Parts: sequence; structure tokens; C-alpha cells
Amino acid sequence: MFKKILIANRGEIALRVIRTCREMGIKTVAVYSTADAESLHVKFADEAVCIGPPPSNLSYLKMSNIIAAAEITNADAIHPGYGFLSENAKFSKICQEHGIKFIGASPEMIEKMGDKATAKATMKAAGVPCVPGSDGILESFAQAAKIAKDMGYPVMLKATAGGGGKGMRAVWKAEELEKAWESARMEAGAAFGNDGMYMEKLIEEPRHIEIQVVGDSYGKACHLSERDCSVQRRHQKLTEETPSPFMTDELRNKMGEAAVKAAEYIKYEGAGTVEFLVDKHRNFYFMEMNTRIQVEHPITEQVIDYDLIREQILVAAGIPISGKNYFPNLHSIECRINAEDPYNDFRPSPGKITTLHAPGGHGIRLDTHVYAGYTIPPNYDSMIAKLITTAQTREEAISKMKRALDEFVIEGIKTTIPFHRQLMDEPDYVAGNYTTKFMEGFQMKEVE
Amino acid sequence: MFKKILIANRGEIALRVIRTCREMGIKTVAVYSTADAESLHVKFADEAVCIGPPPSNLSYLKMSNIIAAAEITNADAIHPGYGFLSENAKFSKICQEHGIKFIGASPEMIEKMGDKATAKATMKAAGVPCVPGSDGILESFAQAAKIAKDMGYPVMLKATAGGGGKGMRAVWKAEELEKAWESARMEAGAAFGNDGMYMEKLIEEPRHIEIQVVGDSYGKACHLSERDCSVQRRHQKLTEETPSPFMTDELRNKMGEAAVKAAEYIKYEGAGTVEFLVDKHRNFYFMEMNTRIQVEHPITEQVIDYDLIREQILVAAGIPISGKNYFPNLHSIECRINAEDPYNDFRPSPGKITTLHAPGGHGIRLDTHVYAGYTIPPNYDSMIAKLITTAQTREEAISKMKRALDEFVIEGIKTTIPFHRQLMDEPDYVAGNYTTKFMEGFQMKEVE
Repeated sequence: MFKKILIANRGEIALRVIRTCREMGIKTVAVYSTADAESLHVKFADEAVCIGPPPSNLSYLKMSNIIAAAEITNADAIHPGYGFLSENAKFSKICQEHGIKFIGASPEMIEKMGDKATAKATMKAAGVPCVPGSDGILESFAQAAKIAKDMGYPVMLKATAGGGGKGMRAVWKAEELEKAWESARMEAGAAFGNDGMYMEKLIEEPRHIEIQVVGDSYGKACHLSERDCSVQRRHQKLTEETPSPFMTDELRNKMGEAAVKAAEYIKYEGAGTVEFLVDKHRNFYFMEMNTRIQVEHPITEQVIDYDLIREQILVAAGIPISGKNYFPNLHSIECRINAEDPYNDFRPSPGKITTLHAPGGHGIRLDTHVYAGYTIPPNYDSMIAKLITTAQTREEAISKMKRALDEFVIEGIKTTIPFHRQLMDEPDYVAGNYTTKFMEGFQMKEVE
Repeated sequence: MFKKILIANRGEIALRVIRTCREMGIKTVAVYSTADAESLHVKFADEAVCIGPPPSNLSYLKMSNIIAAAEITNADAIHPGYGFLSENAKFSKICQEHGIKFIGASPEMIEKMGDKATAKATMKAAGVPCVPGSDGILESFAQAAKIAKDMGYPVMLKATAGGGGKGMRAVWKAEELEKAWESARMEAGAAFGNDGMYMEKLIEEPRHIEIQVVGDSYGKACHLSERDCSVQRRHQKLTEETPSPFMTDELRNKMGEAAVKAAEYIKYEGAGTVEFLVDKHRNFYFMEMNTRIQVEHPITEQVIDYDLIREQILVAAGIPISGKNYFPNLHSIECRINAEDPYNDFRPSPGKITTLHAPGGHGIRLDTHVYAGYTIPPNYDSMIAKLITTAQTREEAISKMKRALDEFVIEGIKTTIPFHRQLMDEPDYVAGNYTTKFMEGFQMKEVE
């Protein structure tokens, strides 16, 4: 087993990994930018190394500094968390070359799954259902127009290097295609330095439902059921739950089997997520595979009493999995608490937290790196906490979330707590009747 | 279902009940003494009524004020929590007479189980194993001496109205009996206004293991397995866990059956706890029955995903239980965090909390009514928080507790956090090798 793990990340996920390492008796090294010196992930690690100033390309993305920190502190493994270098094939390779175990996917795996067109081709070969589309990068506008015509509108244009909604356009009619093609390519080129585009059939009333998988070094994989992440704003997930209110036992088995097949086909090692779109007829289509831990992993942990970070570490250390699939007996919901003003178009609201009172009691979990007196730097993602409730039924998990949000006090900054509180009373949310379009018509109620 | 419940208690248990009521959509009324105006149970209730100043006999024990508060606010039920009026037959009766549902035992049940000698006789009649002893109140010293001689020493003298170790004496030899008899009677008379004594065989290497039961209004009861509460200091529980490290499946079935038999024999309604002493040969003996929720109920909730306060409310509303017994799949430990100085004989340490940082993450539950800026009044019990960890194994639950205790910051007062942190490393604790005598040889290590 590893003796010391460096966590190449910040915030709540760095703290999350440190907690499990402590519980496993593994020493930890935090790395931090000068903007993050006061974060809890720095305080709770056994050692901490400053790796540069913000922005991230001078610190959390600066591979040489991170490798140097690992070498100085004698860390024998690196956990990359999510975001930053977690799905960077080069970093995975550099770790390998330095004899440091990267607790994540191999360079080859990341390359295979990181390019969305390649990922889709691989999944198709594995027999996993995929959204009909261009099957690779579009060579010209003319090719795009032909495929769209053959498949039928509506279609979706997507940047092959994309993420977070950038370089993505829904196109409903043939006459709109050219404008969308040009603007999406321009956006993708600017954001990713890669303007390659592919096309897919647009799924109507789509739900974003993902399957958690874990694979070991011996070619075996299992699934840990689904998470419904359909409540999104500009392709950013806001709240997630498991089980999905749209799920049936039959669909879970089918999607779970497909995800395990996908993972075993590529000999996937570690924790990964196979993201699917599910249409209103409960057809499901492979969207992408994330070769890392997800933000929303705690809801899976809650319903199956399984520590996913621990599992990542065990698998990285070469310990085989049992191969048994896990099915939820409980219901769990996560609300992402962001330092954003929901009354002002979710504008970021960094600054000093003057008061913090955490909710507690039965069925409440809180993952956060912030505390009263902490100043949220403006440089990073605005998520400051994940509030998770777990109960025997969905109705009870929602009731618990409402009372936990009511108890949660954060002063000094604006947060998305009022948004989530309103969401938990929205009839369509309460009925489980939502798709990825849910937020398009959402309006915050006036403050009384 | 009840529309509004008044919680006739304070602190964490009042907040605990309020939380479940909120989740069930039931309105709540807090009552509070002038010393508790700033407690969270007051802030989180829908209404709050001041019922007098400390000490408790002028407020939390003053039945007329509590009944008046319930009538003014139109509460249709009263939850008494633990302690205070929770096992007061007169109060249960007064509630009945005022048409307010007492969420607890009937006056007759409290009387039957509240007097320990009567309780034991009842349990004997129900076929539940009891510690050999005087079978009732001792009429004279001569009778005490005769019974002790017949049973054989060591014996235990106990006050019939007792609790918390008052009026209790272990007697190892005949020549020590008279002195113990006099001093125990004097102590009991002063503490309870009742110097009635009974005698029992002293159980060597005793473990305090209790079985949680729930009975409904239709004569049906079930058990929810055990809690091991052997780690006690002066008969005050410090930490509890479930399952007991001393338990076997066979013993759990036998003790569970005995507890259900006890509850059904007396037609027990609500949540109750049958406390047993278990000797080193795994013989078990009925000790007493608590006709209320226990401080340590959360560990049971954690391992079986069952909200016991909710169950109390449902049963009080006349809803039948399924009758199914519950067995733990997980391991859970509770540490009682008291405002006491473990380096100074656990002397109470009331005062203002200047900083509070709560531990969080996977498998952590915190039940507390305090917060940064809150002043702990000197008038009440010193427990300020219950920290509960839950994991798949005992070893993991201990590891989790260690890291959670390390994260837990309370400044401004002394707390028992350092005691629990040391306990979690004690070889006998870690081995599960402890009896109710465990704390007798315990010494805090010097602070480094």
C-alpha cells in the first residue's frame, strides 16, 4: 500500500481525498497556490507545498512543480481529484516516468476516452449504444450538412475537445446549420485550441444519467448504479440524485451492463463514470466516459455505503475488486453550494465568509473546505460545499434537504442555498419530472 | 398525524426532535429557560416559549408551565426527549388529562418500569433473565445480610429510585456491608427523597449492552439490535457502539428475543431500551428498561437507516409497526463531546465557544445545538455534541472517528475531544476488550 499520497488539487476534493487517506493510515501532501494558503486542504494534510500563484496554469496545472513537490516529499502516488490534471494523458505519463503511481487512468486510456469522437467509436465497437451521428470529426461543412440531412433534424454540433457546453450548438433546421457551424468552430478554437467538430442526433427530452463503474488491474469491472445529473444550468450540474426518479429496474440493469461492458472492453482501471443520455422512451446513448472521480460521487457512496476514494486507492495499489454490482437501497441527493448570487444570474460572489453554521443530524453529509473567517479567492471554480442528504425514500431525502438548507447559514457572500431551497419545492422537481432542459424556464422567486 | 409538537426539552435532543418534525411537515414549539434563549433548539423551532429561569425545577421540570405553553400554542403532542420529564408518570398522566398526546410511555408503564424492583419482578414474570437478588425492596439490614450470604459475595446495593450511580455500592465482603448500606441509603434519600434499597449479585467483568425496541399500540414489538455502552465513567456513558464487539449472532438473537418478549409482555408502546448486563460467559441479565429515547440512539439509526424519532411519532399517532427485527450491516460509534476538562478530572467547563469547526465528509454525523459565539450555561448537563461515525467495519469506524476528532475544533472552552482521541488509540478499546470497569484505570496522557 502507498505510504504517502500527494493530492494534485484544491478545495473540497483535495480535503475529501485527504480524509480517506487519513482513515487508511496513508500520509498526505497537499499542494496549494498562494491564493489557497488558508484552505482546509492545506491545514489537514500532513505536509503542504506551495506550487505557485494563480491562475491555475502557474500552479495546479504546472506539472513540473507538482512532480517536484512529489519528489521532494517522497510521495509514492498522486491523486488528481477532478478537473485540473485529472484527465491529462501527459501528466499521467509523466507520473509513470517518474515512478509515481497516478491514481487515475493510464495515458492511453485518457487519450482513448478524452477525445469524444474516438471514445464514441470505441464504445460502438464494444457494443454500447451511441447517439447516431458523424462517427468522427467532420471534414467539411458539406459533410456536416449531408449527415444532418440523412439523420434528420434536430442535430447537435459538438467540439471534439469540448466540455462545459463550449463549442456546442443545437440545430433545429437545415437553414440554421451554417451559422451554428461557424460560431461553434470559432468558440472551440478559442477555448481549446482545437476546432474539430462532430455531429449527433439531438435527443429530445434528454436526461443525463451516468453509471459509476470501478475496474481493477485484472480486467474486471463492476457498476455501482446510476446518478441523475439532469438538473444543469449552462451544462453545469447543480444537483444530482440517486436513484434517478426516471429509472426502472430493467433500465438500470441494461445501462449497468452496458457500462460494465464498456469498462471491461477497454480494460478500465480505477473509478470512472459512463455518461448516458436517456430519451423519453428510455432509450439510452453513450455520451462520454470520465476517467476520474466525479464531483457528485458522494451520493453513490451514501446509498451503497462504499468509499469511492478508498476504492480508487485500493485498485491503484493492485488490489482486485469483488466484481459484484451494487444497487441502491436508499435515496441520496446532492446540492452543490456555490459562491454565486442566484438572484443575479448566478454571478460569482467570492469574498470572506463571516459566519458559517453547518446543518447536522440524521442523514446529513457536508463536504466543504471553507469555514468562518475563510476568504474565497476569485480565481477558481465557485463551488464551496456539497450538501448531501440520504433517506429511505426520495420524498424523505427532499424533506431532509429542505430542513438542512434552512439550517445552513453562510454570511458574508452570496450562495446558491436559496436556489436549492426553491428547487426543492418546484412541482416538476418534486415529481421527478425533469430533463436537462429543466433550468431553461427557471426563475428565482422574489425575496420577501 | 400531529399538526404541532411541543418539545419539552433543551439542547441537542430538542433540536434532534425538531429536525425530524420539520422533515415530517409537523410544526414545532420549543420551550426554553432564560439560560437557553440562544440555543439552536429555540432558533429552529417554529415557535418558542420561555418557561422560566434555571434551575430546571423552575422551567424544564415545571409541568404547569409546559402544559400552559402547549395549550397557548395549540400543540397536540409533547415530545419529552430524554431526562427531565421523559420518564415522569405524573407528567404523562397530566398530558393525557389535557388531551395532549405524550410521545412516550403511558403513566402505568412508566410506573411499572420506573421502580427498578417492580420492573425486575415484571421481567421475571415475563421470562426475561434477571440478576439474582432481593426481588424487591430490602426491609432491613438483617434481610440484606441474609440474602447476600445466601447468594454469595460480591453483591451490589442499589437505590430503587436511583440512576446515574447514586445510591449504588459494590460490596465484596460481609464485613463491608453495613457501612455500604448506611451510606447508600443516605445518598439515595438525599438525591431521590426515597431511600429504598435492593440487592443484586454483582456481575464480574460486566458489559452494559442494551437492546433498542419499538412497540406499537396493537401489542406488537420489534428489536433493532444492540448498543454497547460499557465505556462509562462514574456510571455515565462516554462512548457507545453498535454492533457490540462482544456480540455473537446467537447472543444477539437471544437478547433481541428477550427484549421483544419483555416489550410485548407489558404491551409497550413507543421506543424503549432494555438494558442488560452481560457477563464474561455471555450470560445476560435484565438491568432496567428506559421508556424513552436514549442519548445514544443515533448509532442504531446509522446502521439500519431508520429514524427513531420519526418512529416514535408514527407509533404515538397509532400507526402500526411492521414487526420485523433489524440487524446491523454497518458499524457505528458515538463519542459524547462534553464541555469538561479531561485533564482535570472531567470538571465542567461552561463558557463561550469562540471558534467551532465541525468535521464532515463520508460517514460523519454531528448532532449539536451549539455554534461559534454560543455561551454554554453552567446550569445543565455538560454534553454539547454527539459525534457519530459509520463505516463498513469497526476498524474503519474507529479510523473515521480519529480523523473526525482531529478535524473537530472547539475553542473557548475545554472539551472531551482529547479524551476520545486518546481512547480511540487505547489497545483494549481497539481490541473491543472492555467492560464497565474500563475507565477505572484510565489516565489521560500528558499534553505534549
